Amino acid sequence: MKEITAIIRPKKVTRTKEVLDSLGFPAMNASRVMGRGKQRAILDEVNFEIDDPALLEMEGAMKYIPKRMISLVVPDEEVALVVQAIIKVNHTGQIGDGKVFVSPIEEAFRVRTSEQGDNAIT
Amino acid sequence: MKEITAIIRPKKVTRTKEVLDSLGFPAMNASRVMGRGKQRAILDEVNFEIDDPALLEMEGAMKYIPKRMISLVVPDEEVALVVQAIIKVNHTGQIGDGKVFVSPIEEAFRVRTSEQGDNAIT
Amino acid sequence: MKEITAIIRPKKVTRTKEVLDSLGFPAMNASRVMGRGKQRAILDEVNFEIDDPALLEMEGAMKYIPKRMISLVVPDEEVALVVQAIIKVNHTGQIGDGKVFVSPIEEAFRVRTSEQGDNAIT
Repeated sequence: MKEITAIIRPKKVTRTKEVLDSLGFPAMNASRVMGRGKQRAILDEVNFEIDDPALLEMEGAMKYIPKRMISLVVPDEEVALVVQAIIKVNHTGQIGDGKVFVSPIEEAFRVRTSEQGDNAIT
Repeated sequence: MKEITAIIRPKKVTRTKEVLDSLGFPAMNASRVMGRGKQRAILDEVNFEIDDPALLEMEGAMKYIPKRMISLVVPDEEVALVVQAIIKVNHTGQIGDGKVFVSPIEEAFRVRTSEQGDNAIT
Repeated sequence: MKEITAIIRPKKVTRTKEVLDSLGFPAMNASRVMGRGKQRAILDEVNFEIDDPALLEMEGAMKYIPKRMISLVVPDEEVALVVQAIIKVNHTGQIGDGKVFVSPIEEAFRVRTSEQGDNAIT
């Protein structure tokens, strides 16, 4: 099993989830992060309101950009498909398209059934 | 060392922390995520107010459910205990009980003392 | 590649980012967590307002402390530098200085260019 973590634009989250769902991966988590890639953010491309004072403070300090992080755990043989699907949906060619990381997961458990391994995630 | 990450119901967070604390694991982090498992969420079981417009937007898009993510780093020999305790506390038998993942941590440092390895986490 | 995750005091985030940026690591993500280390938090040292009801509820339950989590992915040969820089900036000698974890990342992709590996993160 691998965890696939993608840092993407907020406006791409819904489409990314839809595509992954249609490919058979409905299970994922999403959270808010303030991100910045190697390139300094171009604020003109961004168009947002931050309502959370603590995040605003983070943003103010160094021009961080609100991003969404989505993560899902998939069997090894599905990693390439999921990564390529995320890249396809999120690619615009513009700075800020985001990144995708693959990291190892050694074990998974479904709490309801105590299933383990791939059975817990598929 | 392993990181144990659990995606659980918000209302189970306090009890989960209490049990882990009583077992000798007071150190953990908690954050908010929007989660959905393999099963489509049954909204009737959920009963919440989301106050954060950005999370609300995430929720609205695909029926994601507010979850809490807790994570802690434990020595290898404690993994089974912690996982089983989390499953015990969070098991209701209903859809939405959550998942637990175990992933490798190669090194840990306590900033205050520069202790490393298991000494940094115990 | 490794992911370096640091759980630090909110007031140290800006300085930590500045130092990592000056060392050539501008790319990272930041998010809010409620954390507690092995030592029970000393609330007197903390001085904060929580505006988010859900986090407030987490805090209220067991004296969790608002922390920031920053994470970045770096080539193997840069891990020691980044870890030591984070420790240096965040060390006060007081309880609550935080922790730093190193975990494996097996692959990284830059969405804009499809670059992989170290090229995706440097």
